Amino acid sequence: MLYGDYLQIDKLLSCQEPVTRMAGNEVHDEHLFIITHQAYELWFKQIIFEIDSVREIMTNRIRDEANLLIVTSRLNRVVLILKLLVDQVTILESMTPLDFMEFRDFLSPASGFQSVQFRLLENKLGVRNDLRTNYGKSNYLKIFEDQEVISIIKQSEDDFSLCDLLQQWLERTPGLEEEDFCFWEKYRGAVSSLLDDKKAEAESQADEAEKALQLSEWKRKQELFESVFDVKKHNALVARGDRRFSHKALQGALMISLYRDEPRFNQPFQILLLLMDIDSLITKWRSNHVEMVLRMIGSSQFGTGGSSGYQYLRSTLSDRYKVFVDLFNLSTFLIPRHAIPPLSTLMKKQLSLRNDGNSSDGHAWSCKTEDEANAAK
Amino acid sequence: MLYGDYLQIDKLLSCQEPVTRMAGNEVHDEHLFIITHQAYELWFKQIIFEIDSVREIMTNRIRDEANLLIVTSRLNRVVLILKLLVDQVTILESMTPLDFMEFRDFLSPASGFQSVQFRLLENKLGVRNDLRTNYGKSNYLKIFEDQEVISIIKQSEDDFSLCDLLQQWLERTPGLEEEDFCFWEKYRGAVSSLLDDKKAEAESQADEAEKALQLSEWKRKQELFESVFDVKKHNALVARGDRRFSHKALQGALMISLYRDEPRFNQPFQILLLLMDIDSLITKWRSNHVEMVLRMIGSSQFGTGGSSGYQYLRSTLSDRYKVFVDLFNLSTFLIPRHAIPPLSTLMKKQLSLRNDGNSSDGHAWSCKTEDEANAAK
Amino acid sequence: MLYGDYLQIDKLLSCQEPVTRMAGNEVHDEHLFIITHQAYELWFKQIIFEIDSVREIMTNRIRDEANLLIVTSRLNRVVLILKLLVDQVTILESMTPLDFMEFRDFLSPASGFQSVQFRLLENKLGVRNDLRTNYGKSNYLKIFEDQEVISIIKQSEDDFSLCDLLQQWLERTPGLEEEDFCFWEKYRGAVSSLLDDKKAEAESQADEAEKALQLSEWKRKQELFESVFDVKKHNALVARGDRRFSHKALQGALMISLYRDEPRFNQPFQILLLLMDIDSLITKWRSNHVEMVLRMIGSSQFGTGGSSGYQYLRSTLSDRYKVFVDLFNLSTFLIPRHAIPPLSTLMKKQLSLRNDGNSSDGHAWSCKTEDEANAAK
Amino acid sequence: MLYGDYLQIDKLLSCQEPVTRMAGNEVHDEHLFIITHQAYELWFKQIIFEIDSVREIMTNRIRDEANLLIVTSRLNRVVLILKLLVDQVTILESMTPLDFMEFRDFLSPASGFQSVQFRLLENKLGVRNDLRTNYGKSNYLKIFEDQEVISIIKQSEDDFSLCDLLQQWLERTPGLEEEDFCFWEKYRGAVSSLLDDKKAEAESQADEAEKALQLSEWKRKQELFESVFDVKKHNALVARGDRRFSHKALQGALMISLYRDEPRFNQPFQILLLLMDIDSLITKWRSNHVEMVLRMIGSSQFGTGGSSGYQYLRSTLSDRYKVFVDLFNLSTFLIPRHAIPPLSTLMKKQLSLRNDGNSSDGHAWSCKTEDEANAAK
Repeated sequence: MLYGDYLQIDKLLSCQEPVTRMAGNEVHDEHLFIITHQAYELWFKQIIFEIDSVREIMTNRIRDEANLLIVTSRLNRVVLILKLLVDQVTILESMTPLDFMEFRDFLSPASGFQSVQFRLLENKLGVRNDLRTNYGKSNYLKIFEDQEVISIIKQSEDDFSLCDLLQQWLERTPGLEEEDFCFWEKYRGAVSSLLDDKKAEAESQADEAEKALQLSEWKRKQELFESVFDVKKHNALVARGDRRFSHKALQGALMISLYRDEPRFNQPFQILLLLMDIDSLITKWRSNHVEMVLRMIGSSQFGTGGSSGYQYLRSTLSDRYKVFVDLFNLSTFLIPRHAIPPLSTLMKKQLSLRNDGNSSDGHAWSCKTEDEANAAK
Repeated sequence: MLYGDYLQIDKLLSCQEPVTRMAGNEVHDEHLFIITHQAYELWFKQIIFEIDSVREIMTNRIRDEANLLIVTSRLNRVVLILKLLVDQVTILESMTPLDFMEFRDFLSPASGFQSVQFRLLENKLGVRNDLRTNYGKSNYLKIFEDQEVISIIKQSEDDFSLCDLLQQWLERTPGLEEEDFCFWEKYRGAVSSLLDDKKAEAESQADEAEKALQLSEWKRKQELFESVFDVKKHNALVARGDRRFSHKALQGALMISLYRDEPRFNQPFQILLLLMDIDSLITKWRSNHVEMVLRMIGSSQFGTGGSSGYQYLRSTLSDRYKVFVDLFNLSTFLIPRHAIPPLSTLMKKQLSLRNDGNSSDGHAWSCKTEDEANAAK
Repeated sequence: MLYGDYLQIDKLLSCQEPVTRMAGNEVHDEHLFIITHQAYELWFKQIIFEIDSVREIMTNRIRDEANLLIVTSRLNRVVLILKLLVDQVTILESMTPLDFMEFRDFLSPASGFQSVQFRLLENKLGVRNDLRTNYGKSNYLKIFEDQEVISIIKQSEDDFSLCDLLQQWLERTPGLEEEDFCFWEKYRGAVSSLLDDKKAEAESQADEAEKALQLSEWKRKQELFESVFDVKKHNALVARGDRRFSHKALQGALMISLYRDEPRFNQPFQILLLLMDIDSLITKWRSNHVEMVLRMIGSSQFGTGGSSGYQYLRSTLSDRYKVFVDLFNLSTFLIPRHAIPPLSTLMKKQLSLRNDGNSSDGHAWSCKTEDEANAAK
Repeated sequence: MLYGDYLQIDKLLSCQEPVTRMAGNEVHDEHLFIITHQAYELWFKQIIFEIDSVREIMTNRIRDEANLLIVTSRLNRVVLILKLLVDQVTILESMTPLDFMEFRDFLSPASGFQSVQFRLLENKLGVRNDLRTNYGKSNYLKIFEDQEVISIIKQSEDDFSLCDLLQQWLERTPGLEEEDFCFWEKYRGAVSSLLDDKKAEAESQADEAEKALQLSEWKRKQELFESVFDVKKHNALVARGDRRFSHKALQGALMISLYRDEPRFNQPFQILLLLMDIDSLITKWRSNHVEMVLRMIGSSQFGTGGSSGYQYLRSTLSDRYKVFVDLFNLSTFLIPRHAIPPLSTLMKKQLSLRNDGNSSDGHAWSCKTEDEANAAK
């Protein structure tokens, strides 16, 4: 098998046909426009391939925790690709607006908004449909004309997204079981006691202004934590789109964050970090893309697809398009190390490697001979 | 002279004293926190050094256009440094929020908001004071206590900013003179004729719905251009902060953009691009910084300086903090190549290299011997 | 505490005194030269801080495997910093050679070669002294004049380097014990059988030329593996500097690579990857630095410290300066998945999380209710 | 026209057919392998498109110096793309060697060495055929089987490369004419006088050892410059491949470097910098690629195409594959600013913008009203 056959190079390199060339008046920069978008689409295919494989694992094989390592490494690859795509936008910035102006009219109403793969990617990650900005006052699906395409996109809305599967998994985080370690109750106790201390300190202030200030800050904090303890308040925030996770999933994510140093939580914590990276990078990509559009067509022109381009794109930068927004907000609910509820012996064991501690069975790493220990000094 | 003496390494490396170390309970990650901020401050000093030198050139020596090359290369250096700083933020993301929590209290009320150099940089570029977000409802200067520092910052408000000097220079763009080429009148004529064509095309539509649509688009475009032709409307936008440039400076920037291929406009156009890059990169830096803060303290906590950290920082991402916003919006007012008013012979000459065209004085580059020309085939 | 006091900004920003300014004829670009090198030194301090902390953990606390996570995160931070430093070189490329020429003479004989921290970093990682390029035919220490500095650097040669500590730890990799799983014997058997198959296939070829070709390839492979099985040959390669690891440490590294998916090997494998990244990035930094020097002074000039600059620097790009060269070469000794010796039940258990498999104790993640399983479909 | 039709997305996304999938045993990481290489090929097509357009301009249209700006912007785009490709290699590093091992055998003898576009790119830039490393002791063309492909590659060897065209153009640099400014003679005089001063200073040393040292350094410098003044020595270096440029082209490049601040040399100097960037980035790409191969297959394995992979690739990192090596070495021949021969009035004029200096014709930029000048204070 030859390189060119294996990679289908001839076919691949026959996909570039500039409209201005076909119209007999080729504009140099159109070639770049085509190649850049095609490179995006190739990488979108790869990202979707990885996300689908992660979704499959999280659906069927996540009970075997050894698979968490595979999830980590595939999400990490998605992060690497997204970093590349964020940089790739700057290449298109080298296009001259006057050149672009000369082939934009040919493209109308073609628009990046019509990228099927990008919609699939959003849905598979878990962008919530009801939080999307309306596109010309109609559903984002309306832009597509091909029925097959529409049904593929619809299917991606109906399938469990990565965000759904993550929540199902977080809800089963060891330690949440009420009849057992019951993390949530312990955490609530710790927070309550921190807040009481804060209140007491405030009330002990001699200076009235200072006292008032500290009390108002205490109040604010209390309300903040109330929003996470009171399930109704939490659900109201979810309904509004300010939070996305189920209450139980949020508990799991918080538990993993607080006890990230326990061996069994290592990979899970890495996964949470990678999902935040993915969210951030997609936002950065959107943001670079908006700026490129601004430089090309200004803020008041129509996009090639007839959308009010710039304004529409800018709206997608908001937190409403962030899928894992709750992970970013976890820091709000962290508590100082000294206040974190200690793990029970059983729980500690449940989260450990089988071989932790000074096992006496002679298996290495845990033990050093005295000579070695001395040498190490 | 030795390397260490020249760079004052001993002094430099004695500036890191973690508070947690001094308190006898060192938190590992504080060291990173200090080094990262000090690296920022070193680079801020370099950026200010470059911006000051550019301001000096634009004040005193810009009449000699050979100096434009120096301006270009120094602004380009600022761009390179800012790219580094944008990436540098991600290093601080490796800090663990639980570690940060342990030394944050020591720092209060120290805050990145108190970086004198960052305020100076903003003022020297030209961030408009009346467009700043109020910081805890008071002027941003209030955070500083040292009178000398306050007066240095105030001075930077009073001096001509880079944005001021740029405008003074743009207002003198060759070709704007009314008694001469009078670019603005010619441009206005070209736009007017484009709009008339658009209207005529709209009115010739048989389909009423289509006609209405096209007419409404024509109307929108007309109003858009009106905002740039009607000085009063322009000034109203400036007063609101939606535009920043004087009317004449905007004319100069647009002229340079349209005739960028003329040799005399090469460097000027590069300068406009670099200023946009600087603006973009500072926004990206702010944006990465906001996200890092979000990951560290969540969106609802107070910053170390007592500001409502995250929300305050997020507000600085808006276009109000963009100094060269008018340059980004120039694309809005570009017109197709065929409609750009041709340069007069005199104007063409005024914008050329002395030696352009097929000069007969034998100086090279312009001429090829016949043999060479044949060889080149 | 204020931001400026905490970060000692005044002191930090008083460390820049260009010699050309003091000589009354300031050369603009010298400021950049100083700031860039100072930024390097700040980050070198941070890297050394992290490497020292990792060395401390690997000396005293590595028996508790939970600490591996700390090692991973600190090495990862070193990687992030080195990536920044690799990019930082390009900023110095913006210096003009003609400007540099004007202050180079002042600096002589100051030279980047005199950076104490860079030598410390090399030694603490484990650059082998006998593999260093001689610098002007004398030991690299000769350039330093201060006795205290010399003794600090000498101390760093005598202390256990990260490479030493890594080897001590790899030598204790669980599974290497001869009386037990005895990885090495099993691996040797697997290789032997692969080679036999290869030979048999070669000998079965009808075509004589093809047979000869395949046999010669088999021979080459056999010799290659012999170099790793024959301790004498291995040690000869170590003496020559082509390998660095002890024979036992190499076994440990290979075992971790082959069984990386076992939970207990996750972090260890990450650590091996990060050490390769560190080596690669330092080489890239050296390489970018060489190129910058080439652009500034050409390949035939003397460096500022009197070294034959470019040639000396180029020699440090070789594999002799790579500390973890054996990790890169591990891929040479990988074998196909089907040929990897299966773990014994005991060994599998020794490398697992305590809770792997379908434990029946009700702790979550391992179990899904039937309802959930159905829902997941 | 729709987005998907315009970009031929369906065709583009049907080019990925993993061999392991077709063999019924899909290996997950093969998909990444295919996409990565296809993304390379797309970008190679774009780079070749830009390089061809630059070659066309330099063949036919470079007499009109306004076209230099187009050359600059297209070369700059090539630089941006190459930066992306350098980063892209790290994505492939996320492939696991054990996975790669499972589909490598299928690919044999396909090899990246068979990328037609990469060979074309090398030839179009100007990699010299006689300096190529032999590939398995035979000409690099032998790997290709398709006659049409071979003739396309051969054609690219015969056409003027970018390096050829650059030389033709540099040879005509204004100022080189012997009957006129005659740069080379003036430069030779300046160097000669610098060397005489150096010798005199050496001979005036009282200390014999110091005298000997300085004289030997003087001698070395003299020989260095002799290699550029003595055409025979220069040509010998060219024959060996240590230099590439004709003697006259080298003169032109040096003249542009020394007088880069003259307006007419601005763009030409930018072009020289960009060509160095292109050379550097291709070397970095090769270098990252070598390292990725090392991590995947180790240093002693065969590449998929049967080449001795790693060793072959490593050999292409040498300066023999650098096309614009003479530009890097220019710094060797720079002389201090005070020693640079001053331009004659005529020459100064020939290199200026038409409007430089304080012209009195009222065209702006050159003049400030007194009011403005005062305001600027």
